[in-house]
Amino acid sequence: MKKIEVGLLGATGMVGQRFASLLEDHPWFELRWLAASDRSAGKKYAEACNWRLRKPMPAKVRELVVHECKPGRAPQLIFSSLDSKVAGEIEKEFAAAGHVVVSNSSNYRMEPDVPLLIPEVNPGHLALVRTQRKERAWKGMIVTNPNCTTVGLAMSLAPLERAFGIEKVVMTSMQAVSGAGYPGVPTLDILGNVIPFIKGEEEKVEQETQKLLGRLDGGKIIPGGFIVSAHCNRVLVEDGHTETISVSLGRKAAIEDLIQAWRGFRDLPQERDLPSAPKHPIVVREEPDRPQPKFDVEAEGGMATIVGRVRPCKVLEYKYVALSHNTIRGAAGAALLNAELMKSEGYLD
Amino acid sequence: MKKIEVGLLGATGMVGQRFASLLEDHPWFELRWLAASDRSAGKKYAEACNWRLRKPMPAKVRELVVHECKPGRAPQLIFSSLDSKVAGEIEKEFAAAGHVVVSNSSNYRMEPDVPLLIPEVNPGHLALVRTQRKERAWKGMIVTNPNCTTVGLAMSLAPLERAFGIEKVVMTSMQAVSGAGYPGVPTLDILGNVIPFIKGEEEKVEQETQKLLGRLDGGKIIPGGFIVSAHCNRVLVEDGHTETISVSLGRKAAIEDLIQAWRGFRDLPQERDLPSAPKHPIVVREEPDRPQPKFDVEAEGGMATIVGRVRPCKVLEYKYVALSHNTIRGAAGAALLNAELMKSEGYLD
Amino acid sequence: MKKIEVGLLGATGMVGQRFASLLEDHPWFELRWLAASDRSAGKKYAEACNWRLRKPMPAKVRELVVHECKPGRAPQLIFSSLDSKVAGEIEKEFAAAGHVVVSNSSNYRMEPDVPLLIPEVNPGHLALVRTQRKERAWKGMIVTNPNCTTVGLAMSLAPLERAFGIEKVVMTSMQAVSGAGYPGVPTLDILGNVIPFIKGEEEKVEQETQKLLGRLDGGKIIPGGFIVSAHCNRVLVEDGHTETISVSLGRKAAIEDLIQAWRGFRDLPQERDLPSAPKHPIVVREEPDRPQPKFDVEAEGGMATIVGRVRPCKVLEYKYVALSHNTIRGAAGAALLNAELMKSEGYLD
Amino acid sequence: MKKIEVGLLGATGMVGQRFASLLEDHPWFELRWLAASDRSAGKKYAEACNWRLRKPMPAKVRELVVHECKPGRAPQLIFSSLDSKVAGEIEKEFAAAGHVVVSNSSNYRMEPDVPLLIPEVNPGHLALVRTQRKERAWKGMIVTNPNCTTVGLAMSLAPLERAFGIEKVVMTSMQAVSGAGYPGVPTLDILGNVIPFIKGEEEKVEQETQKLLGRLDGGKIIPGGFIVSAHCNRVLVEDGHTETISVSLGRKAAIEDLIQAWRGFRDLPQERDLPSAPKHPIVVREEPDRPQPKFDVEAEGGMATIVGRVRPCKVLEYKYVALSHNTIRGAAGAALLNAELMKSEGYLD
Repeated sequence: MKKIEVGLLGATGMVGQRFASLLEDHPWFELRWLAASDRSAGKKYAEACNWRLRKPMPAKVRELVVHECKPGRAPQLIFSSLDSKVAGEIEKEFAAAGHVVVSNSSNYRMEPDVPLLIPEVNPGHLALVRTQRKERAWKGMIVTNPNCTTVGLAMSLAPLERAFGIEKVVMTSMQAVSGAGYPGVPTLDILGNVIPFIKGEEEKVEQETQKLLGRLDGGKIIPGGFIVSAHCNRVLVEDGHTETISVSLGRKAAIEDLIQAWRGFRDLPQERDLPSAPKHPIVVREEPDRPQPKFDVEAEGGMATIVGRVRPCKVLEYKYVALSHNTIRGAAGAALLNAELMKSEGYLD
Repeated sequence: MKKIEVGLLGATGMVGQRFASLLEDHPWFELRWLAASDRSAGKKYAEACNWRLRKPMPAKVRELVVHECKPGRAPQLIFSSLDSKVAGEIEKEFAAAGHVVVSNSSNYRMEPDVPLLIPEVNPGHLALVRTQRKERAWKGMIVTNPNCTTVGLAMSLAPLERAFGIEKVVMTSMQAVSGAGYPGVPTLDILGNVIPFIKGEEEKVEQETQKLLGRLDGGKIIPGGFIVSAHCNRVLVEDGHTETISVSLGRKAAIEDLIQAWRGFRDLPQERDLPSAPKHPIVVREEPDRPQPKFDVEAEGGMATIVGRVRPCKVLEYKYVALSHNTIRGAAGAALLNAELMKSEGYLD
Repeated sequence: MKKIEVGLLGATGMVGQRFASLLEDHPWFELRWLAASDRSAGKKYAEACNWRLRKPMPAKVRELVVHECKPGRAPQLIFSSLDSKVAGEIEKEFAAAGHVVVSNSSNYRMEPDVPLLIPEVNPGHLALVRTQRKERAWKGMIVTNPNCTTVGLAMSLAPLERAFGIEKVVMTSMQAVSGAGYPGVPTLDILGNVIPFIKGEEEKVEQETQKLLGRLDGGKIIPGGFIVSAHCNRVLVEDGHTETISVSLGRKAAIEDLIQAWRGFRDLPQERDLPSAPKHPIVVREEPDRPQPKFDVEAEGGMATIVGRVRPCKVLEYKYVALSHNTIRGAAGAALLNAELMKSEGYLD
Repeated sequence: MKKIEVGLLGATGMVGQRFASLLEDHPWFELRWLAASDRSAGKKYAEACNWRLRKPMPAKVRELVVHECKPGRAPQLIFSSLDSKVAGEIEKEFAAAGHVVVSNSSNYRMEPDVPLLIPEVNPGHLALVRTQRKERAWKGMIVTNPNCTTVGLAMSLAPLERAFGIEKVVMTSMQAVSGAGYPGVPTLDILGNVIPFIKGEEEKVEQETQKLLGRLDGGKIIPGGFIVSAHCNRVLVEDGHTETISVSLGRKAAIEDLIQAWRGFRDLPQERDLPSAPKHPIVVREEPDRPQPKFDVEAEGGMATIVGRVRPCKVLEYKYVALSHNTIRGAAGAALLNAELMKSEGYLD
């Protein structure tokens, strides 16, 4: 099979680097076009990019020239990890010009006609692009993935919602510094410290979770009928957002039922064996002190949500811990899986 | 005034070091007698103790000889920071022999006839020692302070309970490594990591909070009529436990009412100007990203609870962040203030 | 005594904050005028400055308006912690306009007619300002202090140079992140890492040390007749540069002689009891594993150099460890002591 | 080829875990027998061992029962990562009983008749076991690898010694916490700190380097005719010892000559393509700020020494930075490569 050429907006940032790394040996996609801010445009990627991943920069992107963020001769399929300050305009321009923009940026996530997707959770929401095309004069389209903190929460709630219904959720996150990009969090801010505030994060988590677990009906999403309260914090971890979650369910369920729901959770990505799909979207750890970012964040190539410590909650019904890799499953890997879903659904032909 | 001689059980540990440091220039108490495990007994404190505080070891304790943990010739007033594995037997032995044991250990906290005290929160519970003396054949007594994680929670809830009543509380802690003593948490466990489990901690927080905010009635404590759910985590912070708290109240209250309740909170320690009492037991920070352990943990000499970020909670009613110094207000300073309360109430005459 | 009004260039940076903090209760100087980049100009200090010190911002500077970096109505005595990218022009402008600029910036340190001062080491070099005034058409003057890494090295070498002569020095530094200012070192660069390179640092240390330990002769400095080799590294420490030093001496000396030279070291700042002078400019620790930044960096208010582990070196003659607070003795405190020396020498009348 | 069964003494420690991990898919060796302290003996490895590596415990060792450290039915080839407190007696007992003990412990390294080996550096020293067998009444033998800090130094010096001769070396290490084993360094000791002392380390580095670069002559080692001075420090890094090195050479050489010597360095392990041999024993990085543990420590599977920043030294001749993985190349991987060398030399038949 000839690989599909893809482009990348925001190629030099932390998430852009993850995209470049994850696309290195991708069986379907070939990264051939990079774009970033004007400061980088015109340089080779190896010069423009301050590579911060432990895995070295893929050889085949080193020599690619970084372009300005203009549609023109970019490939049809475009991944975007642009800063939200500029993503709004640029992604619109690409979509209008006929590109399929698979975006990690927050700008369009909550637009009523833009799919906010986790392929295991709400693959059917992809059909929302029909509304999008009807309502906007775009030749292309925009599809988004959730915030890095939403992902672990929504992934771990989805099987519970399907099996028992969900009513209330209280979540506290302990988020990794890579979530703030590069240079991101200054060492002087976080060494020996906790920062109990991440601008806009709690609102995103609360809203996105409801959209993700909502229902597509008559061309629009009916948000999930539960409520979420989020407390978001930054801690001194490199990769991996850890979340403590209390939840009350719609129906009675035993702890074993929850574990079974998580362990049995699978959907289109697993059924169709999409290249980036984790075999086990949810990994359940049984040790009393897991998951931990240091040991668990790389499970299933960073694409799994790891849960553990499920136990009764005196205020809601159950409580547990969830962990998710914020720049893989929470960003670049999420968008990549979205694109794979779109390909398998025929959106890229 | 001649100072009261005091002794210290568990003198070489992290909390023991805090006791020694806080007692250095205490106006009422003079640290004259130290005891620790057999390994240390017979050595001078400067040799027996691997001092880990930034503030140097007080000159006057350097030459004190460390004794075995036997009553004998110890002063009447004894602070205890013994490991809970041995505290049960040793503290009992001291109390039986006539000592007033002001303990930071967990062993007796939940005993029905042992006061679990925060002097600003439930000073009246001290009267429980009358029951204790009646029921146990002790010439002395044991008085305890709460767990280091309970303190910030209970301190911040107390003014809300008094003003509006409390119904439900969900708390997630991000706890400092000094809470695990020394050597405590291995670097290899926590560098770049979060450990979402601290053995026994959640149970302590849930139970102790109810006892602290309970009512003394007919010689026993009627626990507070609310429920608490705790999620406890270890993070890479040296001192200071940060807590995210969601709470529902018994009566309607505006955010301003909560802030006013916190700002106006004071009780016996402030009224009597006890030496270790913080002027403001609760400090309210108004910046969007505070409190933070790095900047706020030393407020009021480590004796304040610092709160911030109060805002509506979609699931319960309000949510906020609380911070408390775990080895000062959460341990040695707590016991010290308990002893000061006891002195001012005439228990040490 | 009426206090001397002083101004501060670069008031919002990390070193600017240290200046503001150290000047809070200064007996001679009163901070009355602040300046910073255009982005901050016009705002109140409390708004313009992202305060990063644990000790809170002094109340009396909170309301001061931040000015542009123009001479005009600034006080005569000006401290400068400007970024070296802009310090060259601005400091010249202030000196030309008649101000006494006591600078922490690197721009003029190695100019032949600009004193590079450590008041305990080379107070006599201050006389170089006469040459400066003769050769430049300035009504004012510029006086500088060394780089934060040079200070611990030069302070610990000075007593050895005086007593025994010095021939060769090999130094490796392990430098704190606060040395890079704010935002400075990104967490993603340094968490779990060592960065074995700091641009321009090794050259500064090698040259400045020779100038500092040089001799003023006929209106110019004859550099010290020894050679220095520096290896500079960044490590995950907040404050305090640790240095391992190997040295060969001009004359034979026993370890006890070195210790005695360090312990007996004092000069004008101590003789005149200058307000910021450490009682013991060099503190010798005898434990096998000290000095350590965590425990020793605050010695003498951050103004001492702490040495330890002196022992024979198989390649040179002796080796030892030195520690110095990089933003106090290595920056703001250094300039402050320079200004105190100048005042006591009659340069500010 | 039928795999050779091997045993492992000290199986539950950090280095023991590395052995188990590196042996997981080894083409020549099969880990079949584990031993550790009495506390672990009798338990399954999965229960006895607090696994601390990010890569999960190999499935095939999980169920192996941990034995006492007694020869008896252990395989002939034994790897040892015993604590030096007990290694002396136990390794002797195994060697006497006929086992080939390939040890990472320090006890026998400096014995005149025990090979201290780096297969790329001094493979010929292996012949020293003939002397060993003659002089000791052992049926087996002991072969050792150097200290984790020595390795990066000796590896980077070896090509320089061969090409130009070496005269003097001054080395400062910044060592990872994993070098101290588990639980090892308490967080309270190292968070935000540097510890400028590691007991016995400097002596080991100075002596071992001379033995490694010495010459086997008439059944004994003539130590290298150069001198080494080591300064050893602990920093907050998980894996990877970084070293700054100044060196003076026996003959004149240009920087390019040094780089060429490093790049061209290879010996028996590469010629015979031993399974654990790095293709490039020395990797030269040309960026101004490398090597760094975060990005470079895993080069060549942790078996390479990475050097960079070679530049003139004003005191000696050249200076550079070297990095080596302390628990792979500096411990378990080193012993493994020793065993592979022994196999290829016919010592295991």
